[in-house]
Order: sequence, then structure tokens, then C-alpha cells
Amino acid sequence: MMKVLVLGGGAAGMSSSSRVRKLRPNAEIVVYEETNMVSHAPCGVPYYVEGLFNNEELFMTYTPEFFREKRKIDVRTGYSVEEIDLNSRVVKVRKNAEKKSEEYDYLIIALGAKPKKVRQSGSRIFYAHHPAQAKSLRDDLWALNKIAIIGGGILGVEMAEALHAVGKKVTLIQRSSYVLNKMLDSDMAHVVTDVMSKEIDLRLNERVESIEEEGKVIVTDKGKLEVDGVVVTIGVEPNISLLKDQLKIGKTGAIWVDETMKTNKENVYAAGDNTETRNIVTGKPTWMPFAPVANKMGFVAGSNIGGKRMEFPGTVGTMITKYDRLFIGKVGLNESEAKEAGLKPYSSMIKSKTRARYYPEPKDIYVKLIADEDTSTIIGGQIIGEEEVLGRLDMLAAIVMKRFTIEESFFVEMGYLPAIATVWDPVIIAIRELMKA
Amino acid sequence: MMKVLVLGGGAAGMSSSSRVRKLRPNAEIVVYEETNMVSHAPCGVPYYVEGLFNNEELFMTYTPEFFREKRKIDVRTGYSVEEIDLNSRVVKVRKNAEKKSEEYDYLIIALGAKPKKVRQSGSRIFYAHHPAQAKSLRDDLWALNKIAIIGGGILGVEMAEALHAVGKKVTLIQRSSYVLNKMLDSDMAHVVTDVMSKEIDLRLNERVESIEEEGKVIVTDKGKLEVDGVVVTIGVEPNISLLKDQLKIGKTGAIWVDETMKTNKENVYAAGDNTETRNIVTGKPTWMPFAPVANKMGFVAGSNIGGKRMEFPGTVGTMITKYDRLFIGKVGLNESEAKEAGLKPYSSMIKSKTRARYYPEPKDIYVKLIADEDTSTIIGGQIIGEEEVLGRLDMLAAIVMKRFTIEESFFVEMGYLPAIATVWDPVIIAIRELMKA
Repeated sequence: MMKVLVLGGGAAGMSSSSRVRKLRPNAEIVVYEETNMVSHAPCGVPYYVEGLFNNEELFMTYTPEFFREKRKIDVRTGYSVEEIDLNSRVVKVRKNAEKKSEEYDYLIIALGAKPKKVRQSGSRIFYAHHPAQAKSLRDDLWALNKIAIIGGGILGVEMAEALHAVGKKVTLIQRSSYVLNKMLDSDMAHVVTDVMSKEIDLRLNERVESIEEEGKVIVTDKGKLEVDGVVVTIGVEPNISLLKDQLKIGKTGAIWVDETMKTNKENVYAAGDNTETRNIVTGKPTWMPFAPVANKMGFVAGSNIGGKRMEFPGTVGTMITKYDRLFIGKVGLNESEAKEAGLKPYSSMIKSKTRARYYPEPKDIYVKLIADEDTSTIIGGQIIGEEEVLGRLDMLAAIVMKRFTIEESFFVEMGYLPAIATVWDPVIIAIRELMKA
Repeated sequence: MMKVLVLGGGAAGMSSSSRVRKLRPNAEIVVYEETNMVSHAPCGVPYYVEGLFNNEELFMTYTPEFFREKRKIDVRTGYSVEEIDLNSRVVKVRKNAEKKSEEYDYLIIALGAKPKKVRQSGSRIFYAHHPAQAKSLRDDLWALNKIAIIGGGILGVEMAEALHAVGKKVTLIQRSSYVLNKMLDSDMAHVVTDVMSKEIDLRLNERVESIEEEGKVIVTDKGKLEVDGVVVTIGVEPNISLLKDQLKIGKTGAIWVDETMKTNKENVYAAGDNTETRNIVTGKPTWMPFAPVANKMGFVAGSNIGGKRMEFPGTVGTMITKYDRLFIGKVGLNESEAKEAGLKPYSSMIKSKTRARYYPEPKDIYVKLIADEDTSTIIGGQIIGEEEVLGRLDMLAAIVMKRFTIEESFFVEMGYLPAIATVWDPVIIAIRELMKA
């Protein structure tokens, strides 16, 4: 009987093991997870901090019991992985004093990502990463008044929304000249910074030099800031410390895999946030630590282990977040990324409305599209607005993935309903601007 | 100097003339429009009846003055077309007592569609078609209490919403066993009929035999109904009465055109609701009288007249409407259409949520997808839900148009944000169900 060992019970770990189970009803499938949660959703942490829900069980799509009973997957929680020996095919795990060694026929590495940390540590320095720590994080933060957030990426912006919503005095310190700078071009980002700077103390172009007094004093290149605590959201990194000498690691710092999600070692697969993939537009290695990608990587890894060949096509880099009423999304390359990749990008950017002229309460929507001069294809898009941002972004994901020409994109028959669209949809207007004549 | 004559100032008439102007700054462009409105939007009539706005000018994207001044298009309103002689290239128009003859180098026929009528007429029998009649329609309907709607297509459903919202007692009489029967399969339609039947008197499988007493009595195969008035929404037909002996008319009853929107007569183009097109999935002739299609047909006709060759690719049949809080959309073929077209369809249908488990106030969303057994492509989809229906439908339009395989569709990187999506998006879940293993 085939034995599949899965390290990590997050999105990729549980989608891969579920897929193996579906294809191999008799396989032995064992999952080791460090926390007490599986199929957990870090994306929910800011909303929990915002007080939008209180039951931490809801962080899980399914419980360990569900997987054990319904899918016959031997989920073991509370175990940390101590050692992985790919040559002798043995993994050592530990739960408190209990230690175990596990052998395997197939190994799936789905250990996820971990927050990048600052040098200092202290009782007032927080990270917002794992749902298993969400309750203590919330208890701690709710007890404070003045809170600094370091880093204006997606998590930083979402934590700013959450902490502002629960009445905290929030300062966000960002090194770059605008927030979400790995997502948006600067000409789109002002829409977000305009809204944020009305509600929180937004400090751009400011660099943190040190954090002192357990997190109560922040020294930046512009001065000193006294707060009650600090949330560090300066990014995440692949969790590969036990593996980096044993497996091929890609240029991005995550585990290299082929299209079947197999590493350079036979019978060893990787999926999810510890895994590198390929950017569909550039063809180059990229790292995309988001749950939907992790789920599909896991699905592909599980398919191939289960005997049904499947290839993961790579990523077009779809990202979406929100601040207050603004939904903010990106797909493909932004203009700077396109230039860095050596392409010849040109762009259109429009501001329009989400509803027909006569329909009450139209909302603003901003669309920026990036095209490639050489191929006349759309290689990226950014959308910011108050409604129907997600699906329009999904459409752009399909367009970018399948390399629609600009003219083909123009002819995509987007729906029209006065309550939620204009007759020339905002995206079509932006595509129209990309047409040369 | 080239003279372009455009008959009809609706979506197609104005997009085609604007496009010619862009490409041919010196052309003489004359538009004749029967009403006092141009670039008008019939789609807004139900919302006007609902009282969501009062300024009828808002029915127009741009005013006649805008087109005259900014685009140098000679827009002449209030003229009805009396005669079209394609052999001698003369069009006769009339405004009250004034008659005119116009010659042309290029003719664009954009006369739109007109409502199908019942045999009877009377002071209490109404049609809801043209914005120019919206005010009198609303004045008349608001003065009544008990109103019947005959026909449960998109317009019938929208008028039912509108009249119910302004406090009328609404009866909707529909011949078929469910509303929106040209759009939805019966297994999806119950979601709509369940909601509608709570608010209005919904009579399905009932056939109107005659309308008597000026519209105050309706006789059906099931009995007699007394009302204060009746709105007839039994469909529209292409407005081609002046042309049917002079031009090739397609199987659908609308004007045949080639991919450049040219009719079978040299220099004569047609665009918009009087024009036939091709269904991209079946390759067969179809008729798609919706504004976004009309706009793009006009754009293509204008491009070709202006000297920039462009082809209209046909339609994937995107439709979206709403009833109350439900958005209801369709793209491609539904299951019955696929069978009629001789394909081998199979389908998936799921009910899911629009938000992460833990995010407050998740809404139900229903997705049905139709795949073709022979090609393993997705050929149609139907979505019903309270939020983010439009964009997901737009994505499906791109998928159907470009013939994504089921596996390619599965890998479209749809965005995930807990506030508006689940980590496996409802559409991806439905795609997953189409995969054979």
C-alpha cells in the first residue's frame, strides 16, 4: 500500500492529500501539522482582529475530524517537523515530549511561509500571520491604543483597516513612496493613499531604523515615534530551513519544482507557499504565496502522485485586497514589472463609473491596463473601485493567461446591467484606449 | 468628400458614426433619428418606472448637441424614415410636414428593434420600449393600481421589479413553466421564481388568449383576470419593414451581414438590433439585441467604412438582469440550446457562498456550467446571486469565446478576498465538477 506523507496542513497540504485520496482510495495518507488547525486561512486574521467574527474554528475550511472521518486522511496536529532526511526517506516529528520517525513512498512538502521578522523582539512587537495565534494577537492589540504598523503591503493595509475600525490610533510606516508598491503602479496607488491618509497617520518614504523599549519606541530616518505597540508586516518568506541543503531551491528562494510539482528528488513534491512557480507572462520563476494558488498546486501534486498526470500552468499573479470600501486588485504585470522583464509595455488608465448614468449611487472605478508593444497582448491590469472589482479582475486573469490580443479582449462580451455596469464597461473603455486607431 | 448616412441614432448608430468621424475627419456624417433622443438606453426604462431617476436626459449617453459640436456629426432628430431605395441610393425622411431626400456614399442601417405587439390595442395596453415614451408610460402606470405583465423575459422581470417597488399589485403571466426561459435552464430558474412569487402574483404555464376592454380584462386559458392595465413584454423584433425586399435577410429575421458588418449590397452596412450575427459557440446565425453588442457592431461597421478593416467575431450571448437583490446572468449556451445545436452537453450545478465562512453576511450564489463532451470545453454558464455575479460572468464570456478547455478554465487564477469570494471560487468549484476525475 502506497504511503503518502504530507508536511503541513494548510491549503496545499489538505488539497493535495484530498486529491490523492480521491484518486487512490487505498493509499495511506498521513498529514503532520504544527498547530491545532488544518486547512487554515491566514487571510482571515485581519478580519478577526477587526472583530467581524469570534469563533476561531471558522478559520478552518474543514476540521481535522472532517478529514479523518470523511476523507480517511490521518491528520495529526500539534507536531512540529524536526528533521527531514530525503536520502533515507525519513521525517522526524515531535509533539511535546513525544518523538516519531516516519517513512514514506511519496512526500509532499507544504510547510508554507513564515513572516519576515525584524531584528528586535519584545512583548509589544507583533506579527499577524497564523490563525492559531489570532486570539492572543487580538487580545493584545485590543488592549492598546496607539499602534504602529511597519510595512504597507497587503497585510499591512488590511491590518490598518482592522485596527482603525476598532478605534485604534494607527500609524502606518512605509519605506516606499506609496502603499501596495509590489502590486500597484504609483499612478493607481494614489487612489488608495488618498483614502487611507484621511483615516490613519500614513507615513510614506520613511524607513524604520530600530524598534526600542519592547516595541514602544520606533526610530525612523525621520525621527522617533512613541506607540503602545507595533505590528510588523514586512512580508513573508518560504519556510524551507530544514530543506535548503537537500533540495534544489529556485532563484526566488522557494523550492524548485517541475510542472507536475515534483522537486528535483524522486517521489518528493512541493506545493503551496514554500514552492516556486513560473510567471505565465514572463516565463520566469516567481513566488506567489496566496491561498488559491496553493490549493491548485496541491491539487496538481496530488493528481500526479495519484496517477493522473496534470501540469500546473504557473501564475498570472492575481491579487486583491480591500481598504475600507475600496477593493484593490491586480493581475499580470504592472508597468514597472513589465519594464524590468525587458518587455515594451504601454498602458491606458481610465476613471469611470460602475453604474449607468441614471442609476442611483454610481461608484468610481479606476482601471489601468498594460499591453505589450511587440505582441499586442494585454499583460496586466489594475482595478480599484467600490463594487464588482473582483470579477472584472478574474476576466483579466483569463485574458492575460490565454494571451488574448487587445482586439480579442475588446470583443469579450462583458455583461451590461445599469445597476452594476456601464454600457461600455470600464474595462472595455480601457482596452479601447490601448487600440492604436 | 465621402458622405455617410446613418439611419437610427441609438447605440449602433452613434458608435458607428463616431468611429467614422475618428478615422475620417473630413467625412460628411448625417444621422437621422425618429425621436428626440440619441445614444439612448431602453435598458433604463424599468428603472425610470421604478422612480430611481427623474431626468429623462439621463437616458442619453450624449446629447445631440454633444455629437454635433464635439464630433461634428450632423444629428437630425424627429425624422422618421419613409422610404429607402438602395438601388438609386436615396433615403426619404419626414419631420411633420417637411420631407427630405438624402443620397449617400455609405449607408449604415441602425434602426434597432421594436416591441412585438398583441393583436388588440387600447388605452390600458402598454409597451415599455423607448426612453422617449418613458415619461408618459410612467405617468400612466403610476396612476394605476393592479397591473398585469404579459411575458416573463428580461424586460418582463425588470418591469415586475419596478412596478412592485412602487407599490403596485403585479401579476406576471408567462406561457412557459418558468421566467427567463430563453436565458436559464429550468433547474436554475427556480431560484428566481421562488423570490418573485413571494412578491407578485406569478402565473406560470398560463397562456393569454385575448385582452379586452382596452386592457382591463385579460382572458387566459385558465380564466379571466381583471386589472387596471397591462404591460406587454413578449419580446422584440428587428425593425426591417422598409428593407426586407431589398436586402438579404438572415434566418433569424434580421439583416444578414458579413464579418465587416456589410450587407449584401455594396456600401450598405447594418449594425445593432436590426442585424443578425453569428453565435461563436455554434457558428450559426443568431440575433442578439443588446446594447453592448450593438455598440461593438457599430464600431466595426464604422471602422470598415473609415478604412480600417475589422471583423466582428460574433456573440457568446452574454445576458444579465436583476430581480430585487438577485443578479441573474447567462453566457454561451444553456443546456437546452446546446442540445438543440446538436452538441453533447453535460453540466455541473452548485450552490455556494460569495464570502469566506467567517466573513459576515455571506450571500448564496448559484453557478451552472455547461461543457461539451466532444471538445472538453466550457460552452455556457448561468450565475445567480446577490453580489459579484457580473464579473464572474464576464470571465466566463472570455472562457467561452476563446474556447478554454475545462482544465484551462480550472486554472484561471481567480482572485480571492474573504469579503467577496471563497478560496475555491464558486465558479472554480463548478468547473471542478466538470472534470471527469
